[in-house]
Amino acid sequence: MKTLKIIKIGGNIIDNDEALHSFLKSFASLSGPKILVHGGGKLATKLAQQMNVEVKMVDGRRITDQETLDIITMVYAGKINKDIVVKLQASRCNAIGFSGADGNTIVSVKRPVKVIDYGFAGDVIRVNTETLNVLLNANVTPVFCAITHDENGQLLNTNADTIASELAIGFSDSYQTELYYCFEKNGVLQDVNDDNSVISHINTNNYQDLIDKNIISDGMLPKLNNCFHAIQKNVKKVCIGKPEMLFDTHANFTTIT
Amino acid sequence: MKTLKIIKIGGNIIDNDEALHSFLKSFASLSGPKILVHGGGKLATKLAQQMNVEVKMVDGRRITDQETLDIITMVYAGKINKDIVVKLQASRCNAIGFSGADGNTIVSVKRPVKVIDYGFAGDVIRVNTETLNVLLNANVTPVFCAITHDENGQLLNTNADTIASELAIGFSDSYQTELYYCFEKNGVLQDVNDDNSVISHINTNNYQDLIDKNIISDGMLPKLNNCFHAIQKNVKKVCIGKPEMLFDTHANFTTIT
Repeated sequence: MKTLKIIKIGGNIIDNDEALHSFLKSFASLSGPKILVHGGGKLATKLAQQMNVEVKMVDGRRITDQETLDIITMVYAGKINKDIVVKLQASRCNAIGFSGADGNTIVSVKRPVKVIDYGFAGDVIRVNTETLNVLLNANVTPVFCAITHDENGQLLNTNADTIASELAIGFSDSYQTELYYCFEKNGVLQDVNDDNSVISHINTNNYQDLIDKNIISDGMLPKLNNCFHAIQKNVKKVCIGKPEMLFDTHANFTTIT
Repeated sequence: MKTLKIIKIGGNIIDNDEALHSFLKSFASLSGPKILVHGGGKLATKLAQQMNVEVKMVDGRRITDQETLDIITMVYAGKINKDIVVKLQASRCNAIGFSGADGNTIVSVKRPVKVIDYGFAGDVIRVNTETLNVLLNANVTPVFCAITHDENGQLLNTNADTIASELAIGFSDSYQTELYYCFEKNGVLQDVNDDNSVISHINTNNYQDLIDKNIISDGMLPKLNNCFHAIQKNVKKVCIGKPEMLFDTHANFTTIT
């Protein structure tokens, strides 16, 4: 089976013109089939402020009302997605921008209201790989923003980490899928203040121990749960680190197996 | 050769939720390969006002500075394009949204500055049909917003009528292409105040006569020049009228040959 790389980038790259430009140039030169997933960065919050739309957060999670969904659709699927696509084309990487509605690629359900009503937030239920496979075979690189749909006409705001892992899982029948989470650190760190203290390997054996010792906590916990979920669902390789892990053979990063 | 329909809709449909919904339901049910091209409508101007960005027009044409390009990218490629795609998916039409940068489908050059500097406005120089053909063969319906790119990393604001005619011309090698311009009237009218006075046929013989008699003037002139350009470049059929012309065999409209 061929290898398919699914690479997720977040705000630390998207919010920095120079970092984005440099990342995309390197990404364009990666050989083999690949998919890019991007988060939103700070631009949506900035636009909301300019438009006097209140940003509502609960426990660090955005509440997506109709106005917020419109802003997210404009910023994620419009501005950021097209900026990435046009830059990849300039580096001769034949990219096409996607939301989960495009090609009916990622189907989700509106998150059920329990204690908190997250509004138009979507939980992924299915990835349709057929149209994407046609494009990958034609040497096209899909670029996903973090928006999905419910097949009934509703767009839904969806976590970009989850989109990346669900894509990797969805393609694991037809490819050896590798999932790369790029963020601002060298990987999962033994000491959060020391970027050289990368834990190079996490597996189900040492994972619980790392949680017990409080080395993995807070924001890292859902990210790693996403990683283990992917591994359990047949994704071949999951890595966390700086984007350099993709291009530099000497880079430090964390591999989850 | 198979027939490919290229259909352009403008502000009169896009700005009206009910009209858009009803159009898209009918459009979804059209058999055979098809491409939708949409204009911008009033939403970009509204957003510019909300963001306190000045709208600059010269002779009815928008001047596209960087801020305006960002707004257009958010509204056309983001909000409007995804709203159309998600609604088509709900009607089981497998749509994928495109700008000309996506799949490197429509290449343009920044309009040279003569008397007026239009800013980031693009004149189409090439349509690449290869990736689109792969998708049309997979029963996917491309949905184009009016944004193109220059292959060097610059997005460019481009006239939607032109995008539709250039797509029709670009595909005329591989399909019998039909081009439909939907607008608020029944077609080109003998008497601008009488929607029943449709001129059912315009060809190179009676065109000059209609211009001389001032029946065709102003905004209609560039539209018809676009139509004749398409006919000369091997597009099989060009029609102007209300969207009903696509679905209702009794509808009046203008055919250009």
